[in-house]
Formats: sequence, C-alpha cells, structure tokens
Amino acid sequence: MGKLMNAKEYEESLRKLNLKVYLFGKRITNVVDDPIIRPSMNAVAATYEFAHKPEYEDIMTAKSHLTGKKINRFTHIHQSVDDLVKKSKMGRLLGSLTACCFQRCVGMDAMNALSITTHAIDAKHGTDYNQRFLKFLAYVQENDLVCDGAMTDPKGDRGLPPHKQADPDMFLHVVKEQADGIVVRGSKAHQTGAVNSHEIIVMPTMSMREEDKDYAVAFALPSDTEGITYILGRQSCDTRKLEGTTFDRGNMYYGGHEALVVFDHVFVPWERVFMYKEYDFTTQLVESFGAYHRQSYACKVGVGDVLIGAAQTVAEYNGAEKASHIKDKIVEMNHLNETLFCGCIACAAEGHQEASGTYLVDVLLANVHKQNVTRFPYEIARLAQDIAGGLMVTLPSEADFKSPEIGKWIEKYYKTKEGVCTEDRMRILRLIENITMGTAAVGYLTESMHGAGSPQAQRIMIGRLIDMKQKQKAAKFLCGIDKE
Amino acid sequence: MGKLMNAKEYEESLRKLNLKVYLFGKRITNVVDDPIIRPSMNAVAATYEFAHKPEYEDIMTAKSHLTGKKINRFTHIHQSVDDLVKKSKMGRLLGSLTACCFQRCVGMDAMNALSITTHAIDAKHGTDYNQRFLKFLAYVQENDLVCDGAMTDPKGDRGLPPHKQADPDMFLHVVKEQADGIVVRGSKAHQTGAVNSHEIIVMPTMSMREEDKDYAVAFALPSDTEGITYILGRQSCDTRKLEGTTFDRGNMYYGGHEALVVFDHVFVPWERVFMYKEYDFTTQLVESFGAYHRQSYACKVGVGDVLIGAAQTVAEYNGAEKASHIKDKIVEMNHLNETLFCGCIACAAEGHQEASGTYLVDVLLANVHKQNVTRFPYEIARLAQDIAGGLMVTLPSEADFKSPEIGKWIEKYYKTKEGVCTEDRMRILRLIENITMGTAAVGYLTESMHGAGSPQAQRIMIGRLIDMKQKQKAAKFLCGIDKE
Amino acid sequence: MGKLMNAKEYEESLRKLNLKVYLFGKRITNVVDDPIIRPSMNAVAATYEFAHKPEYEDIMTAKSHLTGKKINRFTHIHQSVDDLVKKSKMGRLLGSLTACCFQRCVGMDAMNALSITTHAIDAKHGTDYNQRFLKFLAYVQENDLVCDGAMTDPKGDRGLPPHKQADPDMFLHVVKEQADGIVVRGSKAHQTGAVNSHEIIVMPTMSMREEDKDYAVAFALPSDTEGITYILGRQSCDTRKLEGTTFDRGNMYYGGHEALVVFDHVFVPWERVFMYKEYDFTTQLVESFGAYHRQSYACKVGVGDVLIGAAQTVAEYNGAEKASHIKDKIVEMNHLNETLFCGCIACAAEGHQEASGTYLVDVLLANVHKQNVTRFPYEIARLAQDIAGGLMVTLPSEADFKSPEIGKWIEKYYKTKEGVCTEDRMRILRLIENITMGTAAVGYLTESMHGAGSPQAQRIMIGRLIDMKQKQKAAKFLCGIDKE
Amino acid sequence: MGKLMNAKEYEESLRKLNLKVYLFGKRITNVVDDPIIRPSMNAVAATYEFAHKPEYEDIMTAKSHLTGKKINRFTHIHQSVDDLVKKSKMGRLLGSLTACCFQRCVGMDAMNALSITTHAIDAKHGTDYNQRFLKFLAYVQENDLVCDGAMTDPKGDRGLPPHKQADPDMFLHVVKEQADGIVVRGSKAHQTGAVNSHEIIVMPTMSMREEDKDYAVAFALPSDTEGITYILGRQSCDTRKLEGTTFDRGNMYYGGHEALVVFDHVFVPWERVFMYKEYDFTTQLVESFGAYHRQSYACKVGVGDVLIGAAQTVAEYNGAEKASHIKDKIVEMNHLNETLFCGCIACAAEGHQEASGTYLVDVLLANVHKQNVTRFPYEIARLAQDIAGGLMVTLPSEADFKSPEIGKWIEKYYKTKEGVCTEDRMRILRLIENITMGTAAVGYLTESMHGAGSPQAQRIMIGRLIDMKQKQKAAKFLCGIDKE
Repeated sequence: MGKLMNAKEYEESLRKLNLKVYLFGKRITNVVDDPIIRPSMNAVAATYEFAHKPEYEDIMTAKSHLTGKKINRFTHIHQSVDDLVKKSKMGRLLGSLTACCFQRCVGMDAMNALSITTHAIDAKHGTDYNQRFLKFLAYVQENDLVCDGAMTDPKGDRGLPPHKQADPDMFLHVVKEQADGIVVRGSKAHQTGAVNSHEIIVMPTMSMREEDKDYAVAFALPSDTEGITYILGRQSCDTRKLEGTTFDRGNMYYGGHEALVVFDHVFVPWERVFMYKEYDFTTQLVESFGAYHRQSYACKVGVGDVLIGAAQTVAEYNGAEKASHIKDKIVEMNHLNETLFCGCIACAAEGHQEASGTYLVDVLLANVHKQNVTRFPYEIARLAQDIAGGLMVTLPSEADFKSPEIGKWIEKYYKTKEGVCTEDRMRILRLIENITMGTAAVGYLTESMHGAGSPQAQRIMIGRLIDMKQKQKAAKFLCGIDKE
Repeated sequence: MGKLMNAKEYEESLRKLNLKVYLFGKRITNVVDDPIIRPSMNAVAATYEFAHKPEYEDIMTAKSHLTGKKINRFTHIHQSVDDLVKKSKMGRLLGSLTACCFQRCVGMDAMNALSITTHAIDAKHGTDYNQRFLKFLAYVQENDLVCDGAMTDPKGDRGLPPHKQADPDMFLHVVKEQADGIVVRGSKAHQTGAVNSHEIIVMPTMSMREEDKDYAVAFALPSDTEGITYILGRQSCDTRKLEGTTFDRGNMYYGGHEALVVFDHVFVPWERVFMYKEYDFTTQLVESFGAYHRQSYACKVGVGDVLIGAAQTVAEYNGAEKASHIKDKIVEMNHLNETLFCGCIACAAEGHQEASGTYLVDVLLANVHKQNVTRFPYEIARLAQDIAGGLMVTLPSEADFKSPEIGKWIEKYYKTKEGVCTEDRMRILRLIENITMGTAAVGYLTESMHGAGSPQAQRIMIGRLIDMKQKQKAAKFLCGIDKE
Repeated sequence: MGKLMNAKEYEESLRKLNLKVYLFGKRITNVVDDPIIRPSMNAVAATYEFAHKPEYEDIMTAKSHLTGKKINRFTHIHQSVDDLVKKSKMGRLLGSLTACCFQRCVGMDAMNALSITTHAIDAKHGTDYNQRFLKFLAYVQENDLVCDGAMTDPKGDRGLPPHKQADPDMFLHVVKEQADGIVVRGSKAHQTGAVNSHEIIVMPTMSMREEDKDYAVAFALPSDTEGITYILGRQSCDTRKLEGTTFDRGNMYYGGHEALVVFDHVFVPWERVFMYKEYDFTTQLVESFGAYHRQSYACKVGVGDVLIGAAQTVAEYNGAEKASHIKDKIVEMNHLNETLFCGCIACAAEGHQEASGTYLVDVLLANVHKQNVTRFPYEIARLAQDIAGGLMVTLPSEADFKSPEIGKWIEKYYKTKEGVCTEDRMRILRLIENITMGTAAVGYLTESMHGAGSPQAQRIMIGRLIDMKQKQKAAKFLCGIDKE
Repeated sequence: MGKLMNAKEYEESLRKLNLKVYLFGKRITNVVDDPIIRPSMNAVAATYEFAHKPEYEDIMTAKSHLTGKKINRFTHIHQSVDDLVKKSKMGRLLGSLTACCFQRCVGMDAMNALSITTHAIDAKHGTDYNQRFLKFLAYVQENDLVCDGAMTDPKGDRGLPPHKQADPDMFLHVVKEQADGIVVRGSKAHQTGAVNSHEIIVMPTMSMREEDKDYAVAFALPSDTEGITYILGRQSCDTRKLEGTTFDRGNMYYGGHEALVVFDHVFVPWERVFMYKEYDFTTQLVESFGAYHRQSYACKVGVGDVLIGAAQTVAEYNGAEKASHIKDKIVEMNHLNETLFCGCIACAAEGHQEASGTYLVDVLLANVHKQNVTRFPYEIARLAQDIAGGLMVTLPSEADFKSPEIGKWIEKYYKTKEGVCTEDRMRILRLIENITMGTAAVGYLTESMHGAGSPQAQRIMIGRLIDMKQKQKAAKFLCGIDKE
C-alpha cells in the first residue's frame, strides 16, 4: 500500500489481530472494544489522526529515507538534528492533546537504536543484520505500523547475571537454534501499549558478557505470533471506566496501558533476527535505545501543559485565579514544565550523526533531561493539588450528582461564583485527580520515574559521560596547582 | 455508664444510629457493613481498641479533669504540656498502626478549641456557653463518643462575605430563632469520618464581621438529627473494596472517608449552642481550632512510618536494599519524616495554658509544622515510588495472579531472589500504591495539603505571628543603624 | 585596521583611555595595573586571547554580516540559530576557562537588541537609527572593541515612575537638546566590566510611558567621554589581591568587577543616538536585551564546570572520592549544571529571525533558563562546600603556611594521603572558597540571582509568555467541558 | 571566688593568659586587642554580659547541681528536660543578639558528654574518672570559665585507622606515660573560639579499636599550657576589620574564629585525664558529644532571625516590602528558620536521663535537626540575597561613600524613597553580605554544614537509630503479609 493510516483504519487493523490478552483473570476476546483498554487504543489512534491534520503535518510526518515517501514520524529513522527536534515537539504535542501516554514512541526508539547497532555489528562481525532490519523497517513504514519496543526483563535476583539465575527464563533467551530461525523463551515486563501494537521488537535489557550470549538477542515479530501472551497491568482507578458514567474517569477519551508479555517457546525466523549472541553490542543497543527513549519523555511536557491548564481553570472556577500565591504557583508549574522542555530540545539540538547515517541525541543531555522528568512532574502535580483544593478528593461521585434525591445538594453547595457551572467544576477536578492520582498518574508520575530507566540509571550515565578530567584541569590551572 | 468502649461496642453503638447517608447515588441503609465505608469504621474502632492495650495506655488514655476518671484521650481537654505532647504521639502511633486517617482528632480539636473560646466569650459577654459546653463534654467523655468537628463551609464565591453570597446558604447560618433553640441551614464540606461519628460539632469557618453575625454560630448535635444528610466523597481506587479480592486494595483493614454534610433546617436546642452571633470570637475559635488541628497532622508521621517500612521491605524483596542509593533514599525518607515529628513535638512542648485552663499548642510552630506536612509527604511518596520500581503501576490484578491459566506466569516472572514470595511482593507493592496513589493517598497527600487549612492559610499565620520588629531591631543594632 | 586584537593589544588599548575611576575613596590613575582591577582586565583579555586559538576559533569568532570579515563573536550580530547556539557555548567555554565573569557579553547583547529595535523604530517612525547603529557597529567590529551595555538605573523610589521621582536623575535622562546632539544626566548601577570597556552603550531600564519620554534614550559613547565617572563596587575578599601572596586569592588570574557609572551632563552627538523619546519601543528594547542577556548566563555553566572540577579534586585529595555519597553529590552537581546548559542551548536552538535580520533567542525559554540560574548555582555551591569539608573556612593563611616557625605544622597536619601535596590541597580549597564565598561568588551566586533581572522579573515574563488559553482549551476538552 | 563574671572581667581574665597564637604568619602578642580576633572575643563576652540581664537570667543561668549556686548555663550539667530546652533557647537567643558563632557551647557540650562517659567508664572499669571530672567541673563553674571542646583530628589518610597512619600524629595520642601524668602529641583542627578559652578539653575524634588505644584519650588543660600553639584560620573578608572603617565589616561588634591547635609534647597531670586507653567508650563519648553539639546548632536559628530582620529592613528601604513575592519570601525564610527551631526544641523535649544523672537529648532528633541545619541556612541566605538585590555585591566601599569627591554620587544615586538614609541602606546591605558571604557566612553556612559533623555523619546516625523493623512489621501486617 504505502499510506498514512487514519484512526479508523488503525482500529480496523487491530481487529484483525489475534492476540492472547488477559485482564482481571479473564481472557479478553474483543480487545479493541474492551472498556478498560479502549482509551489506550484511542491514544495510539491519535498518533494516526493528527498526522492527517495540516497544522500538525510538519511535526507528525517525515520523509522516509528509504522511499522518499511521506510517512508517520513514528516510523521514521532520524536523518537530521531537525528530525530529532521535531521528535521532541511531537512528544509534547501529543501529550498536550491526550494527557496520557500515547505508547508509540518506544517502537520508534527501538527502530532508531537498531538502525545504529545493526550497522555497527555488521561492520565488526560481517553480518547482515542491518539489511534485515531495513527490510523490516520498510515493511513498518509501508504499512504505518505500531511497534512495541520490548526491553525490560523481569531480572529475578538482581545480584545475579542472566546465566546464573535459578530460573534461566528471568531474562529472555534463545532456547533453540534451527535452520529457519530461533526459538526464544522469557518475558518482557511493563510493556507500554503492547496490545495496541502490530509488531513487537525485542531487545536485551542490559549489557551482557560472553557467558550470557544466549541472552544477547534482538528481533521483531508480529504481535499475535503463536506463544505470546499478554497480561495487562492494573492501574489506579482503572475500573471507573466500567462504571458507565461519563466524567468520573477524568479523561473522557484517552489513557494508556502496560502489560507483561510472556514468550513461551516462540519461533523467530532468521530474517527477523537483528542480534544473535553479539553480546559485545548489547551496551551500545541498550544505551542508544535508552538515550532515545529518555528524550521521548518530552511527552510529559505535554501532559504538564494539560495539568497546568486544568489548574488554571479550577482556579478560575474557584474565583482564586488572581490571588498572588495562585499566580505564582502557576508560574512555577510552567517554569518547571518549560525546564523539562529545554531538556528534550537541548539533547535533540545537540544531536549528531552515527556511522549508520542515523542521528542520535546527545546522550548526556538526554539522561539529564530524563532525570529531571523523575522529579518535576511530581512537584507540578503537588502544585496542581494545592491549587485544586481538597474538594478534588472529597467530591461525591457523578452518580450522586445525577441522583434525583441529592444531586440538588451537590449542585447547590459546590457552586462557586456567578457563571461557573458546578458540573464543569467537577469535571476539571476529576481531570486533575486523573493526572495526579488516577489512571494518568501512572504515566505522568510513576512512569516518569521508572520508564526508560529508573533515576539511578540516569545518574550512572551522567557520572560516566561527564568529562571530569577536563573540569579538574581547569580548576587546577586556575588555582595554580598546574601551570597548564 | 462511664467507660472506655472497645472496638466491638463502638461498632454496635454505630448500628443504633439512623444516619441518612448517600454513596454512588444511592442511600446506604447499613452503613457499618458497607464495604466502601467499613475500613474507615475500622480505623475509628482502632482508637478504641488500642486504648485497651497496656502498652499504649499512657498515650491513648488520660484522666478527665471533670471527673478524674480514665478516659480515651480523644475526649480529653489538654491539662498540661505533657498532654499536648502525648496527643502528638498518639497521632503518630495510630497513623503507624492504621496507615490512614483515623478521623477522631477533629472532634478532639473542636472540643479543646471550644473549651477556650466559650470561656472567653462568657468572660466578655456574660454568657454561659462554657457551662453548656462542659455539660456536653461530660456526656462525650462519659459515653466515649466520636465527634465530628465540622468547620469548612463550601464558601461559594470566594470574593464575597457570607451575607453577600447570591445563595445565603453557602455558609451555614441561623435561619430561625425559637424559644427552645435555633434552626440552621447550610452545609459542611470535606467532613472527615462524618458517618462514623456519634456527634457533630459545628463551628464557623472563618473570621466573621458584624454583618455576618448570623453565621457566627457553634453547636453540637447527634449525628442522626433530623434534617442532616451525608453524601460521601469518592476516593481514588475506592471500588477496589467492592471487588471481593483480598490484597489489591493495598491496606487490608483500614481507610478513611469524607462527606458533604447538609443541614436542611436543622433544630438545635439552646443547651447545645456554644456560640450565637458573637462574631468577635470567630477568629479565636477558628485560629485555636486551626492550631490544634495543624498539630494533629502528627498522624502523617505515622503513615510515613508505614510507607518507609513498605519501601524498605520492597527494596529487600527486590534484592536492592544494600545499594547505596537505596539506603540513602531510606535515610532521606526517615529524615523528612522525623523532621515532621519534630514539628508536632515542638509545638506541643512549647504549649501554654489559656485562661480557661486548657493548654494550647504554640500557634506559630503548629502552623510551621502543618506547612511542612504540605510538602514532605509528597517527597516521601516520590521516594517510595522510586524505591518500589515501576512494577507498582504495571502489576497485574490479584485475579490474574489467582487465574489457573496465567497465574503461573506472574508467579514465575515476578519472583526475585530466593526466599521471596511473589504474592508478598505484590502485597507490599499494592500497599505503596495505596498510600501514594490510592485510597490512602487521599489522606497522606491531598489532605496533608488541604486539611486543617491549605498551605497559604499557614503562610498567612506565619507571617502574622512572627515578631519581625524584634528581628529588625537586632539587625539594625548589629550593623550600626541603631545604637540600641 | 580590521583585525582580531590579541590580549596584549587589548591591554595596550586600555592604557590609552583616560577614565575617571574611583576605588576605596581614591582616584585610580593606572587602571590597567591596579591589583584589584587587573584580574578583571585579564578576564576580558581572555576573550581576545582565546579567539586566536585554533581549537576555539569556531566558537570565538564569526563572520561579520557587514563586511564578511572574521570578527570576534562578541562584536557579532547573530545571523542564524547556529550563531545563537555558539554564543551559549562561548559563554560556557569562557566561564570554564576563567571561573569568573568575563564581562564582554553585555555589550554584545546590547548591540543585538539595538540591531532589532532601531530597525523597528525606523519602520514605524521613519527615523534613521538603524543606519546610525550599523555605523557604530562597523566601528566596533573593525576595532574589536569591548562595549559596556548599560541598562540598570538606580530607580530611587520603586513606587514612582521616572518623571515623578523627587530627584529627576534617578533614571538617566536628556536634560538638553542641542543642534549637534543631546546632553544627558543620571547614572547606571552594577555596570559589569565598565572600566575594561572602550565604549559604553546606554539603554533605558524599563518600559516607559509618554510622560517619561525624556528617559526613553539610547546611545553609545567612548568610555572616557568627559563627564563620566566610574565608582567601583567592592567585593567579598577583594583586598586579598593586595596582600602580595599567591594563592589565598583562590583564582590566580581572573576576576570581575562592577561599577556605578555617573553621567554628569554628558554630551552625545546625534550620530551616536539610537533612541530618543520613542517610549513606545522601550519595552521591545528592554525585553530583547533581557532575553539575550538571560541567555548569556550560559557562562555560569562554565564556572560550574570549574567548581565541579575543584570539588572532585578536593575529594581526591581528601581520599574521599570513592565514597558513594561523594560520588552522588558530584553527579548531582553535574546534573544541575547540565540542566542549566540545556536551558541556554534550548533558548538558542528555538531562536528565530526578527525583521531586522537578527536572530533572537526564544524569549520564554531564555527566561526559564535564567530563572534556573537563580537557583542551581546556589545548590551546586552548597554541594561543593559539603564535599570540600570545613577546612575551607578554617584554613590558616598562606603567610602562615610559609612561616618558618609554624609552616611546618600546617604542612604536617593538613597532609592527607600519600602523594597529595599540602599546598595543592590549600590551593584547591581557596579556589572553592573563592567561587562560593569570595570575589567569584559575587558573579557565580549573587549576580546569577540579580544579573539580567532579578528572579521575579523572569517570573513575570514567564507568566506573560505562556499560552494559558491553549492549555486550558486542551484541559477543558479532555474532561468534557468543551466538545472542541 | 564563685561568681558570674561580667564581660569586662572576662576580658581581663583573658589578658592574663600567655597563649602562643599565630595569624598571617606572625605571632600575636596582644590577643585580646587584635582587631581580627577581638570581635570573636566580644561574642564570647556576650555570653557573660547577657547572663547579668534580668530578662535573660532564666535562660542564661542555671543552678549548679554541685553547689546549688547560680552559674552561667554554659558551665552547667543538664539536670532536666527543661535544662535541655533552655539550652536550645539560649543558643537561639545569643545567635539573635550576636549574629555569629559565640563559641562557648562546644565546651558545655564536652563537659556534659564527659559527665556521662566518665561515669560509664568507672562503672565498667572501676576507674575514678568521674570524680576527677567533677573536680574539674567545680573549678570551671566556680571561676565561670570558657572551655574549648577539642575533638576533630586532622585524620591524614581517611582510609587508615590512627595506628596505621604514615605519620602517627595525625590523631592526637599519648606518647609517654609518667608517674605524674601523660605526654601527648598531635593536633585538633577547626577549634572554635580556641584563643578565647581558659581551658581546652580534648576528646578522641571517633570510635577507636584496641589497636588504637593510645589514641583513646580525653583530658583538660589550661589553654596556655606549655607546648600548645594556636594557628588561626582566615575567613572570608577577615581583613575588612583592619581597614579602620566602620560599617564595611557588616557586623560592627561580633564575630567568631577557628584555629588549628597543635600539641607538641604536652604534659597532662593524671587529675586532668578523663579517659586513657578505654577505647570501648570512645563511641559513647563521640556520639553523646555529637548529639549535644548537633543540638547546639540552635544558634543558627538566632543568626537566621537577624538575617530575616535584615532582609525585611532592606526590603523596606528598597520600598519593596509590600510586593507579594517579597512577603512570601520573608514567610518562607521564617518558615525554614522556625522549622529549624522545632528541631532543636524537639530533641530537647524528648531528652532523657542517663545513668550519671545527666540529661541527654534525643539522639535521633538531634541528628535530624543538624541535618536540616546543613540545608536551610543556605536557602535562607539565598532568599536574603534575592531580597537584598544585586547592590549588595556592587556597593562601593565606605571610603568611597565618605570621599569628598564622589561620596555625593553614592549618597544621591543610592537613595531610595523619602525617609530612607543611604548610609543605613549601605549598612544593612553590608550586614547581609557579612552573613551570606563574609566572616559570618563561615559560621552561618559552612560551619552549619560541617560543624558537629558533616551531613553524611548525621545520615549514618539517622540510618542507625531508626527502628526499621518496627516500621516493616506495621507495613507487612497492613498489607496482609503478616497476620501479626
């Protein structure tokens, strides 16, 4: 075909998949229409929908370096610093339009990391991984697919390497090599948007040594390949989506999801294998993916935009928007949010070209950016709760509001000043609750903490990437220890 | 009678009440056994239960200054600095035993504030409020009752005083004066533990001027008085308690609740009226109640204890407890938590006796303490999420864990090191989720922010209570502007 | 001529100036060789010196858009986003080479702001300011001059506009208009590097209204014009430079200075007047200068580099560099420092072209960057003091160390591990003292706070530049208040 | 005699001492009148002076438990919780009266720690240290003496214990045992107020093992004992005191000092030896001294009072005191300062009696308090600089202000609103400079960081003293892991 799918086509394409998905102890047969899952599907669909809007076209689409055709940026290999910057802006844009995790960046990041690493492996080992990968990429671009990028293994006993684990499956590994491919076993945890994906791209979770070479494996498979099981994680307030009400869920349209993905003796044909036992390239793959994915937390700036907009709105509804402390808190929220924006712009603007031709962000600054993402959204959320007032957590349910008996009391007593509708006030409070405590808090807070690596992972990288010698040299010269 | 009730007796006493309670749009007929409400009842019951434990007796009970009998400290009027200190310790103790809001302090704080203010009004106006109040107090002590202290009015348009509101009921007020008493109308929002209370003590929400004297009213009523309606607020993750599972709710036993309490033409007999039009004492009542109640946030130190214990436990389960950054984060959590403890101890230790004989905390330090409570629990919670790992928000449900089909995968892949039970790991993660995002986060975070007054309210008090002139005098002398 | 001056030539050019400079109550006749001032001259000289080093050429020089010749970047009008980015990098570079304020950015920022504003005034009012300005610019580029950009008036009573001040000179203003030019009176405070400058460029300090049009004046003059007096400010530890010792001053070579510059009936020829009564353009001039100059705080990242290098060095000398808490503090210092770097890169990378052809940074992000500069250097300094140890403030003087009687005790007792020289340890401690408490702390801390506008000035700009309506629109749509 | 000395008598008593003091490479013959040292003498003298003021008597004096006589509290052994609380209040009081380190607490803390530890050693080893100590104490109380408490050894190579150091003197130790006493060698660094002391009390710097038993020694000696040399440390801006001007020094009267104290074969008679080889009690001595001394940082609350007063004053002089952001910053400074106050009150209020009869503070809370002292003064100082404005670091010298030629310009241009005297504005700015960058910053900031143990020392204690098992037990019970 070769086309930009729209939201409707994307939804239809998902219906054709035969995924094995579990939630609340039961297998979900109709994934797309499941009320818990559907908002997350909507959020991915938004990545298709907005690519068709002229005002977002420059951000949301790119020109394929393989075909020259216009493609969705989520399937693009970055060809310039400008591409990297636009990736950051796309993240903020979609975050601000959905107020949640739209799930599609992880596959983009995996593909870009593989474009670099497969090229590097080939250069050293004379393999043909890059060619295999590019064929896969062309397929993804041609069909405008969603890919899950699957890196995180459960890890079992953190003190032991893969091959020393009591259970050898605590890291995904090759259990059999065949003429036509390999068979793998293991699982990937915390898989964002897994059941909304057409393809799943598997990568090793950390640097491996020779003893763990069976664990040094990367590949891509259709998401409904035989042997793959998805077990959805539950989120704070998830079941509000089952209540049949409208606004108690906070965000009326969008959400996210994560899943544990189990690979139980799954076959991968050779053409889809992009790394196999080249443990000496696991570090590069993990770190380049990590850098790209830490940049991707640009999206939280967009979610922050919505939370700030909600805080301003509730302040206005409360009649408090002119209080100097409220104005100052709004400024502080914006200041922190824009500081995050600086991080994702800077790591992109300072990007460079790798040997494969792919542009990679500045790795140090991407880590610095992500580290701030583990902090500032929590403070922005705290300030939003400050501005919202305690009503956010003591508000009666939507059913009470609509009750013929007592709805009148809520209507009467939660009215503020002339011109403010009580229901609107309830809606905006529910949105703030959603982002700071509910389903969206999973993405805005806890995944800001742990996604793309926990805070300590970034600190290790920052410690490693800083040129301390240069700094010490300057200091020693200036105080006269060294004469230069 | 004259006794310390136990938990069972308390529960039975509640069954005798005929409260008009609404939740999710429906009237609750059996309040005590309602699965959403029951954990909050359990938490109040704990204030009875632990008063019978010898190891807690010194903290949980006191000697009535009216009768000399041993009473539950929650019904006590503080007679010494030691009483104030023990109040703070009781808060921490119960917080650490329940990990939630146990709801009973607000009535204690209201009674202590009234003991001071009724005495002061009488001294100026020659009224007999203090005698009325002491009679009520004797009844409460004799029957070991739970009182709701109801202060917060909805306030309508924040820019207008009570008598200028479009709807005169936005602040609770007297609508009729009769020979035998008064009739009131209005509501109180955010009422903690309202439906677990035997009595409800109403106070004005802020300083009033003469034009608002009909709003300057304080009284106490049985909670099931005709004309009172309770509408429960919903909380993050509240309906997990309806799922029939065990551990997905996080805290197996305890919780809290808030309600909007509507007074629709409710009659109050004169003997239960403790302030009536004495607007010149509203400030004292509000500020002394505020000071006591800001001290009461000692309880969050106890909840912090549990959260720290949970974080340490999950670190051990993850095999990460010896990592230096984990140890340092645990120290930081403790440091912040103990800094909070210092605040509630210091405002008590610096307490003083009022004219009524009642001991009042140092008002400045109580405000300083509460201000820290609006900050540190958020940071402690952030650190707990850091230590917990992302699994806290991607963990499959308990139903999945117990599923015959896929439970094995969860059991297998969420196992960490030898000796750690996967289910225990899930349980402790659910507890951290509960305190940082779920039902208990309502109390540990958002109510830490807004309960007993929002942060700005404390800042105003701090600004007012500091002796700036003295500080400026010292500065001006030391730099030679003044010669003293 | 048309040349890049070198450090020596720059020094000689200063000797030709006849400045009226006061310090410690006395007129300085030989400014260049004055021991208090000389380190600041050295720092400006470094901006010449490093422009000749091949490894810094790309950063330190640019191609003049007027002549096409290679010029020092400090005299350049930014012609591209790349120019803006290089400006930020030049700031960091020089900060890391001098560990102080090198004073030359303020003139560059003034010229770039004037290039925009003179063009805009002409477009509206049909004046020829831009042409005058470009002639001045050509002269500056041709002779590679240092310009002081003088904006800050003393302001007198902050509650009154210029024309209402009791003393009309509290803001610099035109006191006489002549055929050949204007006569001005007033002063500019906090003038960085004033006595190291060849030219002084005067701009209004804030937005003016019509009543204040006599204060809406911008011009440039040789620094030794008749009627100009410079009164140098004193700095913490300034007189250590007079002690004749070597290392107690901390930084052996470089420093900064500020001066109060008094204009007592100073004549300005028309060709050097760039704004005269066009009060309607004061806002644009102030805000564009402000944005450029807030970007210029990129230099603090470089000073931070040195401080981090010093902290690492003292940790090594103390034998503590492997302690996990020390390593973590070094990471934190770097993280904060690189977050600042992200800010100055991002505001540059997001720059745009103005009508005059000049590129201007993103004004919002420049303000966000500067706001962080008012915070992070203080925390970096605190961490440096943590790592340095208390010895930094209890260390005996260099004279004691060199004393034949007691030097041996210092040598003996301040020795740490094998291979560390006591004198080196003293030197590095003095450097940290210098940056966190001494002469360089003036620039690294207090000027980071107040230079280019105090923190509140940035907050006002952030509040104004944020598109709150867009954020509210997104929030209202997502919670169902608006249907879009 | 048996008396409370007054300031004059104290000064005279110092004149009788024959100390060997070095500063700037020269021996100081008249210590009391040396312009660098004198302000520190004044600060100690204030501890005598204020003990005679009726309004401070309750705080500044106590009743000796040895003689029943009224003594200066600095020579008192705490006999109750009330004594502990008053000690904290005395610290704040004197800090607020001097705005610097008044140096006398360290001896008080050493004596209290020795009162506990000598008693404990005797109980185990049957020695008579406590009796010796009490005799010494009686002498100190009788003569109202200042004692230096000397703990910190230089430590040499931090990775090695005392006996393994290349230079055996890196920790003070016994080099000879004689019939009449012992001979020691070594040094103590960072000795606060050393040359203002009558006696010097030496204690081991850390826990010792058997191999280091020669280093496990405690004793007291007259400060002018043969063989002791004092080398004064230099401070930021120290030489301003030599300039002969008045207000550039910031604080007109008071200051502090530290010295390196060298013991070169110093003889100690047996009656003054309080520990000798009992290495098993070094931990108790160090930790109890540490706890007392961490409490002593109550003084910084008083210095904070002055800094806040100065900030408020400069805001008024600037005409900015009503700006909402200024008011909010003043509140924040007070909030942080009072949070510190809560810490030193709480650790005192939670004190307990040791076997010797001495009351000891709560060790955990004392460490928590000190940890906050390593943070909040830095933030308070940052806010003070924010409020002060950049003029604090660009202000011309006092000599310029008094210059007949240019003083008029300073007078004119640094005038603000009606009624504010320019000189007063300069004075208050110099005081803020003094506390945040100058001589007093040594005490308010860097010693707040490192005095009584660096931050990490407190963190180690916090980690050790917290009852994690109890917290984990609560957590495990509440989530159902344990059934209790």
